[in-house]
Amino acid sequence: MEYNTPINSSLSVTLHQDDLCAVTTVAASHKFTSDRLWINGEEDESASSKTRFRACVDGVRKLATDRIDPNTQQVLVKKDEWSRMFIHVSSYNTFPTAAGLASSAAGYAALVFALAKLFGAIETFPGEFSTLARQGSGSACRSLYGGFVSWRMGGQKEDWSDSIAEQVASEDYWPEIRVLICVVSDTKKDTSSTSGMETSVATSSLLQHRAKNVVPERMQIIEHAIFNRDFETFGKITMMDSNQFHSTCLDTYPPIFYMNDVSKNIIKLVHAYNAWAGEVRAAYTFDAGPNAVLYTLDKYVVEIGALILEFFTPLADEYINNEEFLRQVMSFNLDTSLVTAVQNYIQKSKPGDIKKIYFTKSGPGPRHLGKERSLIDIQTGLNIFINEKSHS
Amino acid sequence: MEYNTPINSSLSVTLHQDDLCAVTTVAASHKFTSDRLWINGEEDESASSKTRFRACVDGVRKLATDRIDPNTQQVLVKKDEWSRMFIHVSSYNTFPTAAGLASSAAGYAALVFALAKLFGAIETFPGEFSTLARQGSGSACRSLYGGFVSWRMGGQKEDWSDSIAEQVASEDYWPEIRVLICVVSDTKKDTSSTSGMETSVATSSLLQHRAKNVVPERMQIIEHAIFNRDFETFGKITMMDSNQFHSTCLDTYPPIFYMNDVSKNIIKLVHAYNAWAGEVRAAYTFDAGPNAVLYTLDKYVVEIGALILEFFTPLADEYINNEEFLRQVMSFNLDTSLVTAVQNYIQKSKPGDIKKIYFTKSGPGPRHLGKERSLIDIQTGLNIFINEKSHS
Repeated sequence: MEYNTPINSSLSVTLHQDDLCAVTTVAASHKFTSDRLWINGEEDESASSKTRFRACVDGVRKLATDRIDPNTQQVLVKKDEWSRMFIHVSSYNTFPTAAGLASSAAGYAALVFALAKLFGAIETFPGEFSTLARQGSGSACRSLYGGFVSWRMGGQKEDWSDSIAEQVASEDYWPEIRVLICVVSDTKKDTSSTSGMETSVATSSLLQHRAKNVVPERMQIIEHAIFNRDFETFGKITMMDSNQFHSTCLDTYPPIFYMNDVSKNIIKLVHAYNAWAGEVRAAYTFDAGPNAVLYTLDKYVVEIGALILEFFTPLADEYINNEEFLRQVMSFNLDTSLVTAVQNYIQKSKPGDIKKIYFTKSGPGPRHLGKERSLIDIQTGLNIFINEKSHS
Repeated sequence: MEYNTPINSSLSVTLHQDDLCAVTTVAASHKFTSDRLWINGEEDESASSKTRFRACVDGVRKLATDRIDPNTQQVLVKKDEWSRMFIHVSSYNTFPTAAGLASSAAGYAALVFALAKLFGAIETFPGEFSTLARQGSGSACRSLYGGFVSWRMGGQKEDWSDSIAEQVASEDYWPEIRVLICVVSDTKKDTSSTSGMETSVATSSLLQHRAKNVVPERMQIIEHAIFNRDFETFGKITMMDSNQFHSTCLDTYPPIFYMNDVSKNIIKLVHAYNAWAGEVRAAYTFDAGPNAVLYTLDKYVVEIGALILEFFTPLADEYINNEEFLRQVMSFNLDTSLVTAVQNYIQKSKPGDIKKIYFTKSGPGPRHLGKERSLIDIQTGLNIFINEKSHS
């Protein structure tokens, strides 16, 4: 349980599965001759032996129970039998992989959830599944819950079993929250977030200070802001903390750059918008990549959407994932004083700098889908998902 | 003496005046009816009343002595008389102003040096002139000396008169040091370095930690590296500290960005070059702007110059300020394994991303030029410098 132990607590918002998610099927059989994994329709032959993957599979299997036929009440698989079967996994993301959009968080959370269903696994303490997802990808632990989720650092216990995720508030608690994800680049990033963080811990002299002396207080403030539905504070802490995370990346040796000039212009746009409004109406956060995640409230989301469209010219037809939102944004009349205010800080970007915008909101944790969504052929045990993009 | 007091000590390399400098003329006369200032050929009507400028002029004048004709030994101006005259100042830079190339440091150092000559000013303690230049622009205090110069933070004395510059080693001590300045942009920057630093002090929670817990040790290490002519350590500390300075800018709220994607690519090129060489052969530092200052040794400067040319295509004829260096760089055969190594990190930049390269080295402190270089007409007392660029 000691993989991916954090140096500070953290908080995230789980996004709605209707708009972005990982879809995962797991199957176990005595007929399988090895563990196999398909990601986005392609087999990853080395993955099943990797520490991260093994920690999840073996960890959940330890919590397995007998599988009982719900109709006949007969035992279909005895709990000891699971460890004598290999498993097949197929998973795909409905959004770009490894581009700083938390694809591995979604993927490992879905994997642990699916394995838990398959094995009928039962937690021995609350949050135990999250300690397993964490070992796949740190932030995956939070993605096991919906709404606003904290990852409690833990570390009091030697095996780090107290490093767990905990829901702070459900997605229904603050339903006005809206999220716009601006995809700046969907190419593979230079540095994976896990290896990047390891280099930062080893070389950044600011990181430890941040972890010990800055983050704990900010965690309290932002959880309080969520309880109070106080967007001003929620947004300000979100922005400051995103910037500070990227500061520690830059303070790493050699430095790590996740944000680029387009990211920077999105930041300037948000600050210009808030300054014009005289309040925090939008807040940005950047993960390990150049893409911006913008938080706002339903009453401002069309305005900020229109503002982005004004300064970041779309290139493709599928610029925005949601047709109704696109229609609203296109017909919105921006205040000319707002456009002027933003023009003082940024120039119109070149077409295609933002490739796509996902309009979404906070959503629930993992859900069990029906058999008709299965990605594995029940007869052959093989993947049946075909990645359309790889054929285009 | 309390303007521009630093939150940590710092070190800089004074560049050679043959390649980049500020040229300044000061004149005093009973006939003048106000203090007047021309910068790059244009009068700045508000400057003479500004605190920064006044601190320098009034500060140096307090140290004035009688002006004696060297031939006749007659007193030309009694020391009390200086305060009853207005002064005229004309100054220009041989490099872009306000683009993060320390134009104000050079300008204020030249101003204080020229005023001291005019007024026959005498320091009451070593480094007193640097405390005056510091009030014009913080880093100007270091530019009063040649070679490697430390700005001792001070602050033990209430009036900060102990916040002075001190030469660590002259330019002759380590003559192999070479400097390449890559001008990425010569447009005026968003944030002036003085106001940027004030916002950082007020809002960055990493800055105080850096100032108290990181910089003091690094100052010792880098001064030691200079004494030992240890480029590996000198370069590494230079890079780490540049990155950490920009980290605290990013940690400022709202964040300050001085570097852009071109700066970032220069950083990646330097790390790829050093990794390929298995040693630190080049080091970058970025001031309050996107331009890179690269330090290297004479034996590598042509190689790194050729490498920059390979990845950053020049646009104009005057790409490099030094014809002999340009010739050497153009005829240098880069190792193909080096080009491949860098290609793994950056793509060829678009032409013009680096606008100009200054090839230079460490040089002496301010010098007194002859009358034939005067920028003020001795008859009219008015500026005679014409900025050629403003006419093109």
